[in-house]
This record gives sequence, structure tokens and C-alpha cells, in this order.
Amino acid sequence: MQEKSEVNTDIPNSSRKQDYWFTEYGPTNTAISLRVKYKLFEKTTPYQKIEIFESYDHGRVMALDGFIMLTEKDEFIYHEMIAHVPLFTHPEPTYVLVIGGGDGGAVREILKHETIKKVELVEIDEEVVNAAKIYFPQVASHLDDDRVEISFQDGIEFVKGKKGVYDVILIDSPDPIGPAVGLFEESFYKDAFSALNDSGIIVAQAESPFVFPDLIKQINSIFKKYFPIVRFYLANVPTYASGVISFVLGSKKFDPIKDFNPNRVKKIVQSLRYYNDKIHIASFALPNFFENLLK
Amino acid sequence: MQEKSEVNTDIPNSSRKQDYWFTEYGPTNTAISLRVKYKLFEKTTPYQKIEIFESYDHGRVMALDGFIMLTEKDEFIYHEMIAHVPLFTHPEPTYVLVIGGGDGGAVREILKHETIKKVELVEIDEEVVNAAKIYFPQVASHLDDDRVEISFQDGIEFVKGKKGVYDVILIDSPDPIGPAVGLFEESFYKDAFSALNDSGIIVAQAESPFVFPDLIKQINSIFKKYFPIVRFYLANVPTYASGVISFVLGSKKFDPIKDFNPNRVKKIVQSLRYYNDKIHIASFALPNFFENLLK
Repeated sequence: MQEKSEVNTDIPNSSRKQDYWFTEYGPTNTAISLRVKYKLFEKTTPYQKIEIFESYDHGRVMALDGFIMLTEKDEFIYHEMIAHVPLFTHPEPTYVLVIGGGDGGAVREILKHETIKKVELVEIDEEVVNAAKIYFPQVASHLDDDRVEISFQDGIEFVKGKKGVYDVILIDSPDPIGPAVGLFEESFYKDAFSALNDSGIIVAQAESPFVFPDLIKQINSIFKKYFPIVRFYLANVPTYASGVISFVLGSKKFDPIKDFNPNRVKKIVQSLRYYNDKIHIASFALPNFFENLLK
Repeated sequence: MQEKSEVNTDIPNSSRKQDYWFTEYGPTNTAISLRVKYKLFEKTTPYQKIEIFESYDHGRVMALDGFIMLTEKDEFIYHEMIAHVPLFTHPEPTYVLVIGGGDGGAVREILKHETIKKVELVEIDEEVVNAAKIYFPQVASHLDDDRVEISFQDGIEFVKGKKGVYDVILIDSPDPIGPAVGLFEESFYKDAFSALNDSGIIVAQAESPFVFPDLIKQINSIFKKYFPIVRFYLANVPTYASGVISFVLGSKKFDPIKDFNPNRVKKIVQSLRYYNDKIHIASFALPNFFENLLK
């Protein structure tokens, strides 16, 4: 925290909103609130309202349209889990596409894999990338890497017509509200399937089974139409509604459990705070009520 | 929900507090809020303030001193995980002690094991049991079972002087604030160790690694002084702070992973909504930051 040297804020110090509670009401009658030291940034773009504030418990926080997207304290969990599970399932990932994820956290994790030659990041909202570079430098740390190519456009349009290109695609989307709605629909996944090569793997964040059970059912039935291997996995993220997030993995060839080689993890495990070889396997163990959603 | 036939409420319908938000601030600057239809019960006992209300998302909720203890919607997670992990580690549990747990949820799960001959429940606050029987009949459903013996006294005093009695002890305590503070101290665990027989197992709820990391370090070092086998495990409970709760298991003989027989689970898995044989193993996989707390 270098609060005193903060010079890039869009909100002058003298008029900053200070010491209040930010509350995410979510789609239900349950809310999570974070006490805020002061607001750092607020901007309504053509796509969404971006807010960034300094919280007491979780460091800096970015919210999109009132939903917490990442906090400095726990962003490592989501980003490690969306990236390393598919990248340690694929034996030699070289070419990766990330849709959404403009904060750069997924890219940072992807580049820990030395086989990677190119990462394309397709983020609809340029302001998310700009704000992340200023306010979350440790998350956006690798967005200027030579292997990274950023496009500011709609990911749904981007994948149309692409054939057999990628080893891994990550759908690092916000909640299925606003610009991200299309990222949860079948036509998009059909195009994404085609954009993967013959041994390709896709992972998408698939919300919480407590908050969006019907969405999980829907995503499962879409994935099963296209991918021979479909598995959901879980991670505990304290600042997401219900404290848990699920991911869906669709794979053309490699199984995330049978084809997983725990020895490869040793190379980078020192740089990780959540993911390890045991967590990789354990994250696919689903509670009975979740298994029942997939029947 | 039988709202119209509800006759035992201590708060007359006409004066019930209605449609408000209950907020648990916890020990930190992060809060969880549940929107409440109406309050059903409120009483300050010599030990704590008990509140029970009907929520929009989580059915009925019990809070002690402002902390959410259980909700109808997700209580199954905590109760299945505190009970079945040790009871499926021990090859033939017959005699179990529960300290705290006056709502009856742990007892309900314990009695699903057909080897059980006796369960002693030691709850300091009789009013918790009374309220649970009235407002949470599906949680307290087995408190009148012939195999169950309830004592209303301090669990710390109860275990003193007991030698080699129990197969399994469960510490189903609230947060380490108020009457439960002593349940997180060494002298209590020393007595509990003695109260177990030579192949005994103890499990205690050990809070969230995000909220109480120092408490987890402390419990780990206490357990390691007494038990040859000490392992922490995790469960995702949406209405607990940070969405996760840890449990610590101390065992004199049986290892919860090496000595676990998944085939035994089949007998009762149909009655379970969270726990299964894969979850048993997976719950012991800890994220790196948690492993580091135990070093």
C-alpha cells in the first residue's frame, strides 16, 4: 500500500468519498459489504460502471456494475484456479486465448507456464485494462509482456470464424448480466469449440451453485453437446457471493484428472498461494447437491 | 414453512419486526447481510443473545450474539462435515460426545451411523435446545432419540476427569467470543484427549483461514502436542464469514485418509446433500496459504 504516493487517482484527494460501506446486493436477498477507506476511481463506460476503492480488509477492490470483481487480498484464488487447472491438464500449452479478464490476473498466471508462446486477451472494455494498470499493478503486471496481444472488442465476435487455433481458451467473464450475457449462451460456445484445436481445452467461470444453480444446469447441457469431457470444479473466493465460484472445463482430448501429471506443478508451485497438485484433484470433488444439478 | 400454523413464537405476530436486513459484522470490516421477512424469537440468556428470524433466501436463521450459527438452507453442510469425516475415519464408532451443538444438527448426522449406541450432548445454554426444537424441527429432529443424553452444563467442566471413554468427540462451538473462548484453549483439549479412548478421534470447528489465521496456528500447535495425527479440512458454508469453515481433526490411531474406506459411505450417502467419499478426501486438500499457516 503506497497510499501517500498515489498520484494517478481520478478522484482528487480533497473530494474523495471516505469511510463508507460498499454493499453488493447481488441478484438475491443476501448481501456482502466491505468497509471502504476511500474511493479511488469511478467511471461509467459504454459497457459498465467501474468502481475502485481502498477497503479496510481486502486492499484495493474493483467492482463492475456493483459486483465485486477482484480484491487485492483474494484475487490470487480465482486467477490461479482459472488458469492452472486447464494449463496443467494440457501437456504442452503454447497458444492461449483469454476472453474478458482485462485486469490481467489470468494472463499473469498463464505466463508462469514456460511453454507459452502467445496469449491473446480480448476485453470489451478498454477502461478496465487502463484502470487495472494504474490501480492493480501487481495484477496487470504482465499485460505489456511481448507474448501478450490485447484486442479491445467483443469476445463473441472475436471467436466467430476462428478454426482450430488455440490450445486453451479461458472465459474470464463477469456475472451474466450486462455485456457478459452472451458469454453464457450456446452460440458462443459453439464458436469457441471451433476456435480450439483438436486437443483444445476451454474453461469458463460458471458462478456459484448456491446463487445460480439453473445457470450451471444450462452451461452443463451446452458443454455436453460439444465436448467429450466436461467437468466442473470449485474454488473458495471469500468476496464472491456465497464464498464459492465454480468453473466448467470442456476438453476435446485430455482429462483433467486422468491426464494430470502432479510433477509438473513443482516447477511453479513456489509462486502460487492457492493452487497445488492436491487442490487440482480436490477441486473436482463436488458436493452431492452440485452433482445432482448435473444429472 | 408452516408460517400460518406457527404458534410457539415468543414474538406476537402483530408486533413482529418485519422486512429488515440482519447484518453480521464479524470481527472485521467485512459484513454479510440477510434480508429478513420477520423476526421469530429473541432472548438474552445468561450466556448469549439468541435471535431467530425468517429470511428471504436462507429459510430460518439462528444467530448467537449477532453471529449466524445456522440457516435452514445451508446447515446441512456444516453438520454433515463435522460428523461424517470423523465417523467414517473411525472403523466402528459407538460412543460419541458432542460439546455445543445444541441445535441438534450434529446429533442428527451422527445417528445415521448404525454402530452408534450412545451420544452425549453437552450444551451450556438450555435455551438453544428449546428454541431449536420449536423453530428448527428438522435440525433438532433426533434430540429425543433414546440413544441421546443431553446435559446442560459447561463442556469444559464436563470433560475434566473423564478417562478413555469416547470413540469420537465433536466440538461444535460458536466463534471464540463469549462463552466459547475456553473451547479454543489448551487445557480443554488436554482434558478432551484424556476423555477419548486409545483409538479416539476429536474434531473441532476451527473457523475460517481468512478470518482467524492466528487461531488456526494456535489450535494446530495445541493439537500437535497431544495427537499423533492432526489434519485440517475445509467446507464451503455460504453464510459463514468468508464462505468457508475449517475443522481440525486430532486422532490417536486412525488416519482420515489412509484408513478411510469409501465403501462404507454408500450406506448413507442417499441421505446426504454435501458429504460423499470424494468430498471426504478432497476436503483435506489445503490451499498453499493454509498449508503455510501450519508450518
